Amino acid sequence: MPGLRLEISMSLDGFVAGPEQTVEEPLGRGGEQLHEWIFGLASWREAHGLDGGERNADDDIVRETVGRAGAIIMGRKMFSGGSGPWEDDPKADAWWGDDPPFGVPVFILTHHPRETVTKANGTSYVFVTDGIESALEQAQAVAGDRGVAIAGGADVVQQYLRAGLLDEIELHVAPLLLGGGVRLFDGVGDVKLELMRAESSPAVAHLWYRVSRT
Amino acid sequence: MPGLRLEISMSLDGFVAGPEQTVEEPLGRGGEQLHEWIFGLASWREAHGLDGGERNADDDIVRETVGRAGAIIMGRKMFSGGSGPWEDDPKADAWWGDDPPFGVPVFILTHHPRETVTKANGTSYVFVTDGIESALEQAQAVAGDRGVAIAGGADVVQQYLRAGLLDEIELHVAPLLLGGGVRLFDGVGDVKLELMRAESSPAVAHLWYRVSRT
Repeated sequence: MPGLRLEISMSLDGFVAGPEQTVEEPLGRGGEQLHEWIFGLASWREAHGLDGGERNADDDIVRETVGRAGAIIMGRKMFSGGSGPWEDDPKADAWWGDDPPFGVPVFILTHHPRETVTKANGTSYVFVTDGIESALEQAQAVAGDRGVAIAGGADVVQQYLRAGLLDEIELHVAPLLLGGGVRLFDGVGDVKLELMRAESSPAVAHLWYRVSRT
Repeated sequence: MPGLRLEISMSLDGFVAGPEQTVEEPLGRGGEQLHEWIFGLASWREAHGLDGGERNADDDIVRETVGRAGAIIMGRKMFSGGSGPWEDDPKADAWWGDDPPFGVPVFILTHHPRETVTKANGTSYVFVTDGIESALEQAQAVAGDRGVAIAGGADVVQQYLRAGLLDEIELHVAPLLLGGGVRLFDGVGDVKLELMRAESSPAVAHLWYRVSRT
């Protein structure tokens, strides 16, 4: 069975979101810049139902993984776009709208039980209240050979890292400093990383790691 | 005139030294691991008067820059190996011994005036008490076309970044998490980075950036 993968964009100073996250600006101040390298790529635009876009080395790299995972694991805050409507109203919709870009079952880690929600394009939201191992098992059961990816946020990544359940990290290091916000690797304990590959364009450096506990 | 360069090893979580730095362990707990990728290379061993060593892609990269700078700027703590003898006795020797690996004038930023000290191999220690711009001017005057490099520590790097005086960063990202210690990019404000090049081996990822103020 393929391992659990994380693919995420990080600033050179280690942040995956900027400071002052809000529902309007879920990636915090400056956080959108982390993903600027990807928005213009043909592969990303296709995955979001858009025409055109650039075909270059970054595009090839995104194409390797886009749509690869058969299931996704996501934190509650990432699902609802921060500390917004979801917490007040458990029936409130996801931040991701009616045509979400996932296309596979998404397992949401939460403390609030809720019925599964089915969206367009094969996306469904399955709410898991009994912990990260249960979410991984359920995700693997539906993903099969396609494997499972963690979408974020950082707190969920850190939980899986601490538990020794994350196997691969594909890191897109954006050439910018956010100076504050949410750090990807805070408090994860002893983690062993093996550098598998690195590529770069003027827009971003891609680093692939295999992960194990020391 | 060539720009001011920084070449430094950093953990993937952004640290250039681990926690609990001491005179015996100036890079803090686990900090030596940051430099493991370089110790076995022929270029590094030659620069330190040792025979043998590996010749590979990492070695080629080190060879591009080793001995390139005509002068070096260094913080007082890096000079004396932490908060050790230097502070108690301004005549105490540098942490780097009688045969230091620099081979060029080293300009030490300090608050304590002191006579220039001359060592073997062309290394001299010039003590600068009137600030980072003065240190850079003095270093550039002796370096000429060879340019000036910052050796560290992080506080000195941050001062030059904040002042908009650093032009290039060659970052060696070691595949490890230190989880604590001294962060390279803390509190540097708005800095614009341009990714120039990336290379990697199983031991380390090399990233080259051009720096400007936004």
